[in-house]
Amino acid sequence: MDKATYTITFFHPQATQIEVNKGRDLLSAAVAAGVHINSSCGGDGVCGRCKVIIKKGDVQSEPSGRISMLERQKGYVLACQSTVHSDVDVEVPAASRLELDKISEQDLKLLRLKGIYSEASDIDKGKRIIAKDIFAHGPLATKLYLELPAPSLTDTVSDLERLYRAIRKIKDIPIIQTGLTNIKRLGRLFRESNWKVTVLLGKRNGTVEIVSVEPGDTSQRNFGIGLDIGTTTVSGQLVNLNTKEVLATKATYNKQATFGSDVISRIVYAAEGEGLEKLHHAVIDNINAIIEALVQELKINLNDVNAVMCAGNTTMAHLLLRVDPTFIRKEPYVSTANFVPVIRAAEAGIKINPRGLLSCVPGVSTYVGGDITAGVLACGLNRTDKMTMLIDVGTNGEIVLGNQDWLVSCAASAGPAFEGSGVKCGMRATAGAIQRVAISPGGETKVVTIGQAKPKGICGSGYIDCLAELFQKGIIDRNGKFSREKLDARIRMGEEGQEFVLVFKQDADCDYDIVITEADIENLKRSKGAIYAASSILLKKLNLGFSDIEQFYIAGGFGTYLDIDKAVTIGLLPDLQRKKFSFVGNSSLIGSREILLSSEAKKEAEAIAKKMTYLELSVEHAYMDEYVSALFFPHTDLSKFPSVKTK
Amino acid sequence: MDKATYTITFFHPQATQIEVNKGRDLLSAAVAAGVHINSSCGGDGVCGRCKVIIKKGDVQSEPSGRISMLERQKGYVLACQSTVHSDVDVEVPAASRLELDKISEQDLKLLRLKGIYSEASDIDKGKRIIAKDIFAHGPLATKLYLELPAPSLTDTVSDLERLYRAIRKIKDIPIIQTGLTNIKRLGRLFRESNWKVTVLLGKRNGTVEIVSVEPGDTSQRNFGIGLDIGTTTVSGQLVNLNTKEVLATKATYNKQATFGSDVISRIVYAAEGEGLEKLHHAVIDNINAIIEALVQELKINLNDVNAVMCAGNTTMAHLLLRVDPTFIRKEPYVSTANFVPVIRAAEAGIKINPRGLLSCVPGVSTYVGGDITAGVLACGLNRTDKMTMLIDVGTNGEIVLGNQDWLVSCAASAGPAFEGSGVKCGMRATAGAIQRVAISPGGETKVVTIGQAKPKGICGSGYIDCLAELFQKGIIDRNGKFSREKLDARIRMGEEGQEFVLVFKQDADCDYDIVITEADIENLKRSKGAIYAASSILLKKLNLGFSDIEQFYIAGGFGTYLDIDKAVTIGLLPDLQRKKFSFVGNSSLIGSREILLSSEAKKEAEAIAKKMTYLELSVEHAYMDEYVSALFFPHTDLSKFPSVKTK
Repeated sequence: MDKATYTITFFHPQATQIEVNKGRDLLSAAVAAGVHINSSCGGDGVCGRCKVIIKKGDVQSEPSGRISMLERQKGYVLACQSTVHSDVDVEVPAASRLELDKISEQDLKLLRLKGIYSEASDIDKGKRIIAKDIFAHGPLATKLYLELPAPSLTDTVSDLERLYRAIRKIKDIPIIQTGLTNIKRLGRLFRESNWKVTVLLGKRNGTVEIVSVEPGDTSQRNFGIGLDIGTTTVSGQLVNLNTKEVLATKATYNKQATFGSDVISRIVYAAEGEGLEKLHHAVIDNINAIIEALVQELKINLNDVNAVMCAGNTTMAHLLLRVDPTFIRKEPYVSTANFVPVIRAAEAGIKINPRGLLSCVPGVSTYVGGDITAGVLACGLNRTDKMTMLIDVGTNGEIVLGNQDWLVSCAASAGPAFEGSGVKCGMRATAGAIQRVAISPGGETKVVTIGQAKPKGICGSGYIDCLAELFQKGIIDRNGKFSREKLDARIRMGEEGQEFVLVFKQDADCDYDIVITEADIENLKRSKGAIYAASSILLKKLNLGFSDIEQFYIAGGFGTYLDIDKAVTIGLLPDLQRKKFSFVGNSSLIGSREILLSSEAKKEAEAIAKKMTYLELSVEHAYMDEYVSALFFPHTDLSKFPSVKTK
Repeated sequence: MDKATYTITFFHPQATQIEVNKGRDLLSAAVAAGVHINSSCGGDGVCGRCKVIIKKGDVQSEPSGRISMLERQKGYVLACQSTVHSDVDVEVPAASRLELDKISEQDLKLLRLKGIYSEASDIDKGKRIIAKDIFAHGPLATKLYLELPAPSLTDTVSDLERLYRAIRKIKDIPIIQTGLTNIKRLGRLFRESNWKVTVLLGKRNGTVEIVSVEPGDTSQRNFGIGLDIGTTTVSGQLVNLNTKEVLATKATYNKQATFGSDVISRIVYAAEGEGLEKLHHAVIDNINAIIEALVQELKINLNDVNAVMCAGNTTMAHLLLRVDPTFIRKEPYVSTANFVPVIRAAEAGIKINPRGLLSCVPGVSTYVGGDITAGVLACGLNRTDKMTMLIDVGTNGEIVLGNQDWLVSCAASAGPAFEGSGVKCGMRATAGAIQRVAISPGGETKVVTIGQAKPKGICGSGYIDCLAELFQKGIIDRNGKFSREKLDARIRMGEEGQEFVLVFKQDADCDYDIVITEADIENLKRSKGAIYAASSILLKKLNLGFSDIEQFYIAGGFGTYLDIDKAVTIGLLPDLQRKKFSFVGNSSLIGSREILLSSEAKKEAEAIAKKMTYLELSVEHAYMDEYVSALFFPHTDLSKFPSVKTK
């Protein structure tokens, strides 16, 4: 008998049920049920990340090249391409789950020590950057413990003015703001706490606000979150606002990827029905999950998290605040706000102290956001007298060129491949991710994973190593194609063309072989080509060349290390003296934290955003030529890469 | 058959029904039903203002001296003293209704012309004060119409910064605040309005905020409300913020009177269960009713009312904002806030433009509030080199003494009699209120009402005239007692002792004779005694006497005129040269409006509140002696009133 509605039970691994109409696709049903399934193409059936296993029931699926024969036999389907025609039980395999990954203990220790992602390793040819501490301490939220004099018949100043008077004895603040919520509580609070209170002061747009008042001395409990909101990855860092200590860092894939893998597809999606709402909630869920995981790990009360500083590209900042991003992609490409005032985190849906503050690092333009401002600040690019280039490799690849006198930026659509997204066995740089690859001339393959865990997939730096090794060992050609003749145990024909096996499943922490496919290589080649071309054009516009660059910073979520030599080998980076390069890790997150901790840094960030100019690549005709030339390993013109040519 | 619940139908005059449990009292049932019945004793059966007529059904009432025999025959009961024992129909007579009184056309014209309540009349011996205009125009909320340049590929500054840039072209505002709500709307708003918008700027605690942004040119529509929130009377004035024009004024009794007639009984009530909530909602209902009536009369859209300035005593300010007033009456008598930051009116429940602002005139101390600050400002007491006294006759009688160099204040509990509350036929100074009374030696009585309407009751100035006439014609003695022998048609024995008939019901706009009773006289005597004693003590504390006063301002809601001679005759005012006196009407409302219209005036109000010192009378032993001496007409010591003695 045909029913109008069916029950889907998702096992992820706990069971979640939802009633749906006949013919509903599994991906949208999962979203509606609050079950998170990876997806980066927005349901087009292209990315192949939303694989689920049908355990029971009648599901009709469009055929997909993303499902191997073996997988099909096991019941795998793409959730976005499958509609329900009976009650069904669906298993969401670990690889398809959008989960908050835990950073390994070892990495955590490292991060706590350094406060940054970057770390030198024996094979890292770049310099490492130690967290700078050049800005005066002055966090977005500060606490003051006050022992107020109790009122008497000769001192009858009101409760609020008593509080102001005590604050001004310690700090010179002419204008103090207070909301009604706090005023309502003062009378009882002061008397019940015997006039001993802790006041939380927040910096809000040129004035100081009494954010909240608590009984007793809670001045030691003052924490903040630095956030980097990337198109593909969301990272958060818990810091002690009093001591500047970095306590923990967590990252997760941006749940918005379910609705589109790049900013343009998300802006399009935002205009559809509840699209903006969904995108907003997706990233807020991410942020809340990260914050919750951070405070649970450190056993901190969520109410003691008083401030959040957020760095993200302009579209991410709009979606975070639920501001319509429509006009970002309409000529003349104008955003609603690059400088966003400080608001209450709760206004955006972020769960910390209900009166805690949310600040966004100011952006430069529609396509160069606060993440780049933060990155420039973190690298000190705006303070150096050396000609410096910063490349931030993300879904949008942004490039900044300049020094203390001027700053120019541009952005290129690089795609999420180097973040481990949109590639077959890609994953973020967390425990179990392959981050180093060595292939012997005989084809013997060794991998090193983050946290020395059993391999689960490949992160950005692993792909760079892998590409360089495959290229140098002659397994792929300059165009990125496998030579058909070289088939062996590792080089084989897969469902999507030829592929190379890095780890067989018996040695892996997943039930498939970890491979890099020809399609993956094509994807990675486009990413590196876009970034190289953009850097190249930016220099040309300023009548400069790569040889004029004295310092070169590489930022991005590749992993905890990046082998500069190999990045040059594949043509992601130009062939310069290796000592000029520094891998700075997630510079956006580092900058975000610095701005959270210092109003001096905040001022400098504002100056950077105002000072930096933006070059729109889409109107540069030479860009496409440069891009096509860069779609080779390392480049069409080998003379640009003398050290690679020599090898 | 006994039912658990009964239906009460209130006719006021439209019918409103409510289901109640057996035994519920009619006053609380009326409050629950949203039917407003006057009450000033808080349900103690003392004030007699909550008279209703039982038309049908079984009601059990406690006997009350406030109900005359005749009234009892007609079915009158006190709502607070009556419980229901069947379904009942209850008529709320006009005199018991808490209604927003309309000020007569003539008075309105006057108010529009002068912007103030005061007006000279042929029998007014005081000077009149014309609305001053000494402060630079700079209202709490201003509007700017902007034609923004549309963005282009060479001008891609974001929407928000585009708005800031345009504002800063016109006004030098370094820090502009904006909330997320406005930012969210900008993108679409700018494009749909073709970049022509009106921005509403508000002054908030030392910074300027973009309150709202509207499409097109709405700059001409910018209105504000000046409020005086008295313990007994709430008054509001609608002004054009652009032109400073006063458009209309309305007043009503404070609905909080249902829960207690003075601030102390309300503070006590606030601590009981939902007491604070009820008191807060009562005054907010008053304010919203006044504002709605004002905008309806002037055919103004409520959304174009952008700012409210409120002056009230400290307890009223606390209750307005729903701030617990408990500690005001606990030693050492400290309020929660005398300087309240500007908030959004909606935060307090006031219905204007949802993003419009609410500001409170700063207060001096627990018992001298923003109404007195506003009054001092309105009279220019803080700017004069003459020794000046301001007496504000309200439920709390406040007195200020000083000049440009110093200001001292005190407060005395005077009761609401001069506001027409707590007296048998009292009413506010609106159309139909007797404001002038003349009694010929033969006992012939003439009355003049506000608006020349048929008399309905007696307002403050009417009572002063009446007392002076009764005393001068020997109908009452110096102690305020009727001589028992003098009974005639007008002087008769009433239910509450002797009474004097001012108007027989056939000539009145009510179905009873308009009388002044011995109890009323006792009440009024105490009011005038408290105020005279307080002024006297304040002077003594400063080693001064009444003869040192060069200017004397009398403020209060007596009516549109006050006969100074008669106020001296009864001993409310000291016996000084009449030219020293000025009746200033509702100086709190005038000051509130001035502060609403000028940030210069606001600064001056802050300076006044900081400068003024406060004398606590309750700790002055001499006060009680002075008070007892003043409980005579005009005073125990006739030598203090030579002009009265002569007559």
